[in-house]
Amino acid sequence: MHFEYNDKTTTLAKKLSAFMEKHVYPIEQSYTQSFLNSPTPWKTPAIIDELKEEARAQGLWNLFLPEEYLPYGAGLSNLEYAPLCEIMGRVPFSSEIFNCSAPDTGNMEVLAKYGSDTQKATWLEPLLEGRIRSGFAMTEPDVASSDATNIETSIEKKQDSYVINGHKWYTSGAMNEDCKIMIVMGKTDPTAPRHKQQSQILVPMDTPGVTVRRPMAAMGYLDEPVGHAEILFDNVTVPAENIILGEGRGFEIAQGRLGPGRIHHCMRLIGCAQRALDMACQRVNQREAFGKPLAKQQSVRESVAQMHCDVEQARLLTLKAADQMDRHGNKVAKDLIAAIKIVAPAMACKVIDEAIQMHGALGTSQDTPLAGMYAYARTIRLADGPDQVHMMQLGKSLIEKQQEAK
Amino acid sequence: MHFEYNDKTTTLAKKLSAFMEKHVYPIEQSYTQSFLNSPTPWKTPAIIDELKEEARAQGLWNLFLPEEYLPYGAGLSNLEYAPLCEIMGRVPFSSEIFNCSAPDTGNMEVLAKYGSDTQKATWLEPLLEGRIRSGFAMTEPDVASSDATNIETSIEKKQDSYVINGHKWYTSGAMNEDCKIMIVMGKTDPTAPRHKQQSQILVPMDTPGVTVRRPMAAMGYLDEPVGHAEILFDNVTVPAENIILGEGRGFEIAQGRLGPGRIHHCMRLIGCAQRALDMACQRVNQREAFGKPLAKQQSVRESVAQMHCDVEQARLLTLKAADQMDRHGNKVAKDLIAAIKIVAPAMACKVIDEAIQMHGALGTSQDTPLAGMYAYARTIRLADGPDQVHMMQLGKSLIEKQQEAK
Amino acid sequence: MHFEYNDKTTTLAKKLSAFMEKHVYPIEQSYTQSFLNSPTPWKTPAIIDELKEEARAQGLWNLFLPEEYLPYGAGLSNLEYAPLCEIMGRVPFSSEIFNCSAPDTGNMEVLAKYGSDTQKATWLEPLLEGRIRSGFAMTEPDVASSDATNIETSIEKKQDSYVINGHKWYTSGAMNEDCKIMIVMGKTDPTAPRHKQQSQILVPMDTPGVTVRRPMAAMGYLDEPVGHAEILFDNVTVPAENIILGEGRGFEIAQGRLGPGRIHHCMRLIGCAQRALDMACQRVNQREAFGKPLAKQQSVRESVAQMHCDVEQARLLTLKAADQMDRHGNKVAKDLIAAIKIVAPAMACKVIDEAIQMHGALGTSQDTPLAGMYAYARTIRLADGPDQVHMMQLGKSLIEKQQEAK
Amino acid sequence: MHFEYNDKTTTLAKKLSAFMEKHVYPIEQSYTQSFLNSPTPWKTPAIIDELKEEARAQGLWNLFLPEEYLPYGAGLSNLEYAPLCEIMGRVPFSSEIFNCSAPDTGNMEVLAKYGSDTQKATWLEPLLEGRIRSGFAMTEPDVASSDATNIETSIEKKQDSYVINGHKWYTSGAMNEDCKIMIVMGKTDPTAPRHKQQSQILVPMDTPGVTVRRPMAAMGYLDEPVGHAEILFDNVTVPAENIILGEGRGFEIAQGRLGPGRIHHCMRLIGCAQRALDMACQRVNQREAFGKPLAKQQSVRESVAQMHCDVEQARLLTLKAADQMDRHGNKVAKDLIAAIKIVAPAMACKVIDEAIQMHGALGTSQDTPLAGMYAYARTIRLADGPDQVHMMQLGKSLIEKQQEAK
Repeated sequence: MHFEYNDKTTTLAKKLSAFMEKHVYPIEQSYTQSFLNSPTPWKTPAIIDELKEEARAQGLWNLFLPEEYLPYGAGLSNLEYAPLCEIMGRVPFSSEIFNCSAPDTGNMEVLAKYGSDTQKATWLEPLLEGRIRSGFAMTEPDVASSDATNIETSIEKKQDSYVINGHKWYTSGAMNEDCKIMIVMGKTDPTAPRHKQQSQILVPMDTPGVTVRRPMAAMGYLDEPVGHAEILFDNVTVPAENIILGEGRGFEIAQGRLGPGRIHHCMRLIGCAQRALDMACQRVNQREAFGKPLAKQQSVRESVAQMHCDVEQARLLTLKAADQMDRHGNKVAKDLIAAIKIVAPAMACKVIDEAIQMHGALGTSQDTPLAGMYAYARTIRLADGPDQVHMMQLGKSLIEKQQEAK
Repeated sequence: MHFEYNDKTTTLAKKLSAFMEKHVYPIEQSYTQSFLNSPTPWKTPAIIDELKEEARAQGLWNLFLPEEYLPYGAGLSNLEYAPLCEIMGRVPFSSEIFNCSAPDTGNMEVLAKYGSDTQKATWLEPLLEGRIRSGFAMTEPDVASSDATNIETSIEKKQDSYVINGHKWYTSGAMNEDCKIMIVMGKTDPTAPRHKQQSQILVPMDTPGVTVRRPMAAMGYLDEPVGHAEILFDNVTVPAENIILGEGRGFEIAQGRLGPGRIHHCMRLIGCAQRALDMACQRVNQREAFGKPLAKQQSVRESVAQMHCDVEQARLLTLKAADQMDRHGNKVAKDLIAAIKIVAPAMACKVIDEAIQMHGALGTSQDTPLAGMYAYARTIRLADGPDQVHMMQLGKSLIEKQQEAK
Repeated sequence: MHFEYNDKTTTLAKKLSAFMEKHVYPIEQSYTQSFLNSPTPWKTPAIIDELKEEARAQGLWNLFLPEEYLPYGAGLSNLEYAPLCEIMGRVPFSSEIFNCSAPDTGNMEVLAKYGSDTQKATWLEPLLEGRIRSGFAMTEPDVASSDATNIETSIEKKQDSYVINGHKWYTSGAMNEDCKIMIVMGKTDPTAPRHKQQSQILVPMDTPGVTVRRPMAAMGYLDEPVGHAEILFDNVTVPAENIILGEGRGFEIAQGRLGPGRIHHCMRLIGCAQRALDMACQRVNQREAFGKPLAKQQSVRESVAQMHCDVEQARLLTLKAADQMDRHGNKVAKDLIAAIKIVAPAMACKVIDEAIQMHGALGTSQDTPLAGMYAYARTIRLADGPDQVHMMQLGKSLIEKQQEAK
Repeated sequence: MHFEYNDKTTTLAKKLSAFMEKHVYPIEQSYTQSFLNSPTPWKTPAIIDELKEEARAQGLWNLFLPEEYLPYGAGLSNLEYAPLCEIMGRVPFSSEIFNCSAPDTGNMEVLAKYGSDTQKATWLEPLLEGRIRSGFAMTEPDVASSDATNIETSIEKKQDSYVINGHKWYTSGAMNEDCKIMIVMGKTDPTAPRHKQQSQILVPMDTPGVTVRRPMAAMGYLDEPVGHAEILFDNVTVPAENIILGEGRGFEIAQGRLGPGRIHHCMRLIGCAQRALDMACQRVNQREAFGKPLAKQQSVRESVAQMHCDVEQARLLTLKAADQMDRHGNKVAKDLIAAIKIVAPAMACKVIDEAIQMHGALGTSQDTPLAGMYAYARTIRLADGPDQVHMMQLGKSLIEKQQEAK
């Protein structure tokens, strides 16, 4: 056991931080505000494409894809990637610059792991090159989708095709103009055993019958230019070969993607929270009230100390989960993955909220990233399963383990 | 001591609830969503003007103005008005329909209490009739404005005029097209004793030198069509008679307006929280997960019970503050007013947040009022002084009282 | 609606506070410490008997018994008694001085309401005169007794007698030497409908077969000289006339006693919390650290303010529950009674804990009442049903009401 | 970075757990209850001496003393010792069996690090052999002792002696019959610079002028047979050679002992919390209420999951602090040591409290270790400096670091 990052991570972290300092923080405000009343909210601004080229040239590219997928990706373990993901999380939109943004990362991992050669050539490669983007259509408005057996979208075999009918929302990524492909979760056989009913299938955005109805807001934010789409599927027909891994494997694929996906969200949120804390520390030094800098108020010091303890603990837990995934696989690590999904978003909400309070009205405004970070953190308490579902599974597992231990 | 509303209140509450059921809830969704990408976000929609007429016809008009200002207003005590304010709070934009929305209410009360006859004729009367709206320019970006001695805007006497220079933001109300007048807080004499430096002055929106720079966001919301403006004052010149009550009286006026203003915000937030709880109770009956309605989960019942306890306690505290203001005046009631300002916004944040969690993705969307209510509640933890300032004052006062008691 | 105590209450409160100042606070420390290693921990100290006489002489006697039981008791409504109960709660052992201590109050109320003439003459009258004390044997070690259907103690009819067998613990009051009688809850008919199985019966402490096994600790305290006993009932035989109200009425009686019982505990705990807050305010004025009195630390002021808000809110909720019981009866008030049972003990734990922290090591010691108050508050989160049971019932009721409202 | 214990730790942990299973858990209840009304509360029971011999024979002895003090101690790093300390913490009195209990550990470390040869021979060696015990006299009743400049005890040089006058309390260890020596903190020069005023000196318990006045309670517990003493020092005279390290070095010595001392308390508390969680998991499987085992209640699962997350995070943070102490020394690790002192006791209070709630009345009784563990955890929120002092220092340090980073 020891607690210091290895050299590979330290070197990449320095390089990444330098990139952020030079290229990302300076444009953060103008980038974010460019979407206020923008006529083209779903078009990725040109600056991002420029920075993507620069990042790729520096080798800061596809860092998320674990070593098992080499030559795809940068060959980092989850533990090595985690601190980099945290650094990107400090500016939520920056992940895209390094081709490390959700839901593309999860989609690429699914294709790298389970995709056929054709699927890889057609979709994985342009995604890895950052030429297109992708969506993941899982959540449905009418049912509690965190319980996969509730999914109502149907995927019906008709000769050499599948026909998809359903209603999705919060399909992240699907508003963006560069989004060309979606992975859709639906049921191929509602009569099969509980976890064999679901399948995942590739659906190009321009397939007839796909209607993007509107962007969904998340705590007041539309998250331009990525967005979360409400989508209707009306007899959407795709070739049979678009199915991933085969009928009835949808739940299995979902399980596979969720581990890394959750780690990534947690590390980004730890980045948000750490940034919020850093900003708070700077703010309280500059701001005076009632005759002295806020930094000298005991209440401020107590709050800063508590925020730090919360961030650091969540970070260590997430790193341990990453380490366990690397050593023992996602299945063994499932309790730890549940634990970080419970801990990190709630921690981030709390820490960012406190930082907002220390910033006063400014903290609620469009002039800092804090309010947007809060919305992101709050949303992740629901995305990929609400806190309560993870607590249910973790609690059950812990109680069972204790029984076995007796 | 007893805990039941009097007949006047009960009758008005019934009438108001019936109005809300018939006219407001049915248009809530379409009204709110009409501002998504609206070309005229700062124009009050016509439906509001229609409903204002209807409300006025029914006597549901200017309910906020205490009996001491009769014949202005409806002659209700704070205690009688509080439950009505709560009902309006269930749909945050609805206050305007009854000419009871901030910051107009505070401005009208200031004018009724301290205004000269000319000021009343020119500004109070059109405001009471709902023909124009108004802004209140207090907060400044560069200083901690909750400490009034920090205010940097200058109001300088030049012959028969005052010349105003300064920089304000979060000037609520000032984005709206019908906003014709602002009350501006500034310093007429920075060398006077601490609480005699400030003055308040009437500034018509169309005065040369007034530049509305942009709308400020509050946790991702622009709060159309009312908005919060950033405003520059560059040698803005108004007649000397525009000063309210006289030079050096600004702090005193601010104190006078804050009591009722805070009660109103608190009651609206209690309305938000109660509505969120009501919505949560309905949601958990309808939604199934893991084989049974959420309503049958022990964790959901515990959460609902706790939410109810929180709402009810904050309500009672706020009603007690209203009663004490009515009986003993705002000054005697100042500790209780501080207490509700500490309690109600934080309570509303917590309860609404919990209701969002029970709604899943829907709770974060534009399809319920919950996310907007959360933003409102969160903002009020900073508006009219951050929680910490009220805690400082209340804590100090309690410790001192204990010393005297010895 | 108004929030000021009536004259009767105000007058009695003044008298009671004066009594406390003169007679109780001065002996508090010596009284409490007299039990450290006392050879006679279960004997009520003589000073209590002296003060009981004095209190009775002043008319501060049996204040708890509502007006419906006149001529028994002082004829106060629950709302009138509540503030007096709070004052007694400031020194937990003081209730006994005014013959207002649990479980005697509940037992007296049961006998006044449901007792036969013989039962009243034999047990109620000496209790009302403070000549004897009593116990209430409800909780059992082997089952979750908050679910009354789990009760395992049997009460079997045999000719003109009942024979009781069972195992109880936390039988409050039963360690005291003056405890002469217990009310025992058991099952007369385990095959009857769910809430008709239970009966309550009077069992004199000296009945053969009653074995007081040991005093039970509550968070480290034995609560001398009252105590909580573990008791075995081995073929304990009492006359059939000892049954209260009749067979199968036990649940009904329990329901009847719980409303007032819970209000009393809540008011006492509010007294504890208010006292803890008062002590904290005094402490922070006297104590210096790092160059200034704690009272000038912003964090201390924030904490004091929050404690006050918590106490005051719980007080108002409890008073509202008392008012509703007086006006509409315990049944209508059941949701409010559940609410205060959820709120007050948890609030008291939090506030007292905070006061302990402000006192440093002293706060954990035997030299202030704080640690003992904490233990009392913590215990009440479990006694008369754990928080979770009250939340279950209240949550269920609120969700159902919302359904009916639709 | 990796998160698995090394082989040395794993092997010792297994051995220690086996010892606990075989020798300690079986006597836990009888041991604890033997102090209820014991005539000899301050005499260590014979069973402990027997187990000490057995533990020493197995090499489970003096595990706490870091490798730098070899040949004293077992030569473990802080990181290696931490998990063992956690295992002992599961039964708070068990540390003594392995000669690893406070305040002896801190006293031994001070003597090993700073003691003269005579001091080592006279006091360190019998302590290392477990033949005597020791006390640490720091806290004073009259001042906030967490601010060392407040210490009022005087240590005056008179020829070849020092004369000590003062008033201490919560001198841990000093009630025990085997306690032969105290380290006393006092001021040799109140006029010296702030952190050069204090000295530490060895005072045999039987020195004339030392009066042990009484045992102090900690949240209702006297913690027999170790205890916390109130002690008067009345012209207590000891040889000059009893001073440790020299005059004016007391603050420096205190700093040196606090790092390890805090780590140990934190690890023990993590052991308490983990045990409480394990017990809760077992309890909820066995206990039924309202028709099903508590283990199947969603609220119970949520609570168990949250408890686990809290324990695991605090454990990782503490292990990181231990690792940093080992690698970079106590001074570099000071922020992390402050962080765990803030986190672990509060976490333990919360987790143990929740476990008590799941146990019902049993949880508050003398029949489980839970209530005692709670008292221990609560006390540590004050011992070695209240939470607020650590937050002050950590918050200040973090804000300063952020300034430097700019």
